Amino acid sequence: MTQKGLLLVVSGPSGVGKGTICSKLMSERDNIKMSVSVTTRQPRPGETEGVSYFFRTEEEFMKMVDADAFLEYMCVFGKNHYGTPKSYVEEQRNAGYDVILEIDVKGALKVKEKCDDAVMIFIAPPDMDTLRNRLVGRGTETPESVARRFGEAIKEIGLAQQYDYIIVNDNLDKAVGQVQSVISAEHSRVMNNTELINQLKGEM
Amino acid sequence: MTQKGLLLVVSGPSGVGKGTICSKLMSERDNIKMSVSVTTRQPRPGETEGVSYFFRTEEEFMKMVDADAFLEYMCVFGKNHYGTPKSYVEEQRNAGYDVILEIDVKGALKVKEKCDDAVMIFIAPPDMDTLRNRLVGRGTETPESVARRFGEAIKEIGLAQQYDYIIVNDNLDKAVGQVQSVISAEHSRVMNNTELINQLKGEM
Repeated sequence: MTQKGLLLVVSGPSGVGKGTICSKLMSERDNIKMSVSVTTRQPRPGETEGVSYFFRTEEEFMKMVDADAFLEYMCVFGKNHYGTPKSYVEEQRNAGYDVILEIDVKGALKVKEKCDDAVMIFIAPPDMDTLRNRLVGRGTETPESVARRFGEAIKEIGLAQQYDYIIVNDNLDKAVGQVQSVISAEHSRVMNNTELINQLKGEM
Repeated sequence: MTQKGLLLVVSGPSGVGKGTICSKLMSERDNIKMSVSVTTRQPRPGETEGVSYFFRTEEEFMKMVDADAFLEYMCVFGKNHYGTPKSYVEEQRNAGYDVILEIDVKGALKVKEKCDDAVMIFIAPPDMDTLRNRLVGRGTETPESVARRFGEAIKEIGLAQQYDYIIVNDNLDKAVGQVQSVISAEHSRVMNNTELINQLKGEM
């Protein structure tokens, strides 16, 4: 009896550390996979089809859009497109893997619309000053970019209410532990254990 | 900022080991209290008012029933009555304590009706043979009593769908760990962190 895997949507403002949390989680847990995106951009050296990305032409991408084959996608004219393919996520989940989708807030809320049973996790900063400092501390952002990302973060915190869980990333180990607890608890949900209940009933 | 404590309803068939799970949980966790019942029976030596039970007369008990002061109660003519007082549970939760209520399935479902945000945990046996063996192995039950309790267990498994979580008690440490995960996850629920979200918004 293999339980269907979860779709874990890990999201939150830029600079909150969601990528670091997901990497650590991947290193600690078995039976978990990162979602693989479809993209129209060219593969870079060392990138592998089906592992780094699914590389598709713009025409192929648009056919997938028409066929409603994405949980979410971002399609900007003249730019590379990115999308989360439903089929890959479903295949992994049906094989018993939990799938992590690390994604911005806008994308996350689109996924929620398409996937009823997605487990929505919002990663929050301990306070807004810390978030600003992290964005500045990256050293890769211009002051304008910091200001823009911080402005977006303000809007995004306002959308946290639409998630299932909120986890404060104050301490990495603690935050990862809390995500682990969410995963474990979700696997114990009655709605994810119908087969177990029927099995017990069948033994009577 | 103290988060309101959870009401954890830990329930399941007779012999499933819910008492052992709750005892271990109490020894491992801070900020957690067992619910204290009201009873009309006489205190036994060593029992303390407000710790073991709240000891009340039958008249006082009935007044509490009329005042809707119980989350659930059992009132059998000519027998001692037992009930879970709302006020005690609410006081502890408002002080930031999680409250565990270890209770049979019938009582648990009554609590759910009165308390929307109760976290309903069903403890299940790994299989029905194991449950029967545990009931027999207690050595305190007559064959008739084993048969009756086992018959009730069959009905109770059928009610597991009305719970939030189902945890199989195959291995005590593992089962306790899963309850711990549920507690941690529930504390991370967005609906239990409105104050945190408002605080972050207030900092903008």
